[in-house]
Amino acid sequence: MLSFLGFVPYFCAMIRVIILGAGNVASHLYRILHQQTNVEIVQCYNRRNVLLDPMQSKATITNTYKQIKEADVYILAVSDDAISEVSGLLPFTDKLVVHTSGSAPITSISEQQRRGVFYPLQTFSKEKAVNFKKVPFCIEAEQESDFKLLWNMAASVSEKVYKISSLQRSILHVSAVFVNNFTNHLFTIGKDICDTHEVPFEILHPLIQETARKITEINPDQAQTGPAMRNDIQTISRHMDTLEDPTYRSIYQLLTQAIQIQHGKKL
Amino acid sequence: MLSFLGFVPYFCAMIRVIILGAGNVASHLYRILHQQTNVEIVQCYNRRNVLLDPMQSKATITNTYKQIKEADVYILAVSDDAISEVSGLLPFTDKLVVHTSGSAPITSISEQQRRGVFYPLQTFSKEKAVNFKKVPFCIEAEQESDFKLLWNMAASVSEKVYKISSLQRSILHVSAVFVNNFTNHLFTIGKDICDTHEVPFEILHPLIQETARKITEINPDQAQTGPAMRNDIQTISRHMDTLEDPTYRSIYQLLTQAIQIQHGKKL
Repeated sequence: MLSFLGFVPYFCAMIRVIILGAGNVASHLYRILHQQTNVEIVQCYNRRNVLLDPMQSKATITNTYKQIKEADVYILAVSDDAISEVSGLLPFTDKLVVHTSGSAPITSISEQQRRGVFYPLQTFSKEKAVNFKKVPFCIEAEQESDFKLLWNMAASVSEKVYKISSLQRSILHVSAVFVNNFTNHLFTIGKDICDTHEVPFEILHPLIQETARKITEINPDQAQTGPAMRNDIQTISRHMDTLEDPTYRSIYQLLTQAIQIQHGKKL
Repeated sequence: MLSFLGFVPYFCAMIRVIILGAGNVASHLYRILHQQTNVEIVQCYNRRNVLLDPMQSKATITNTYKQIKEADVYILAVSDDAISEVSGLLPFTDKLVVHTSGSAPITSISEQQRRGVFYPLQTFSKEKAVNFKKVPFCIEAEQESDFKLLWNMAASVSEKVYKISSLQRSILHVSAVFVNNFTNHLFTIGKDICDTHEVPFEILHPLIQETARKITEINPDQAQTGPAMRNDIQTISRHMDTLEDPTYRSIYQLLTQAIQIQHGKKL
């Protein structure tokens, strides 16, 4: 009769989770994991004893290591620097303890535990909801059975789960700094230039969206355009005259050079 | 009886257009303007006598200035450097002649003509179709009636038409170099780093999309994250160790510094 109610997974063991940390990643993971029928968030630990979500029960929060309960997986959603310390202070051994960091190696977790990584590769802001279905999860574990548990948990949240080693993850992280952090700073500069001259920055929004969309269809190398690519010296010099901020000038010069080196133009 | 056939615009003066040039902008403008019921592309001029679209009739192409026909507007979709020369060689005076450049001033067109600008602010690749409805058009003209004609033509193609002066346009163009050209180069670097270490770059696609999408909702300044923003010296130094290419290292250092200056971190 149950089958009439819809999809009933064969193996549906509840995964008991404890989240440690109170930052953006902790909050977003809390919200999405809380919605999963195969996940139970047993408890959350953070020093300040704060709720990760306004709907969370106060009884499930602790700021005392000794009070941390039994669970299948302990998710350390803490800063990279704190992974070693927090995992070392856990009042038990031989449990599955994972971090959520893009750059810390799996070995930054205390070797007293069964170690793993549960890294959602996305940029999280406190205020903005995230569509987790499209967020790639990079999974790593020392033991095969732990890997399967993490894979199941990730796959219940996202369509994109990858087995990624610590070395590969560190490469992804460096790359992400270029395509996300640095790119966002270029957006900040673009907006500042517009604001300073009272031009609405929103005129550039469609260009920005298209720049990002394009590379899912063609190689970014092939998508390169602009005065640096064309070696359009007149325009480059006019732009340099417009820029007053010395940092903006340095960035303009360096990236123009980099594009020209990449595309074999004369400097 | 005609009204039964659908929407019949009240005022529907046909705008007769001649496109000069054979690059990406010329081809894309040809295709979109050709679809408009209020636009007739009378002729196209380019030195190599090439079609702008495989469907175009050969009879509408010329490479001889003297054969250029009568039209309401002449669109110079040529390189910035060629605007002055091509507009100076036109075998008539006092016609509406516009360029499509983001950076050239309106005065780069020969003063023998009624000058204007018809600038679609988007990145065009030969191979990729463009959704013109979302492309902002920046319009400028010396005469009010010319401005109206350009506005009508732009508004038939796009939902976003802006009156933008040459000064404002030059600011937009500098800004666009940062948010489009330089950003695309950062994507190229990110892909190269992944390729070198055999990590699939596609894992970063959702992050790139989200980075671009985010700034339409929050200020890019507020969206800044990453090791530079957190002044996470350990991660920054690990990333620098990973990067071998001297240009990538310089870019990493300069943009890290720029983010820290922007956000008042200690260097």
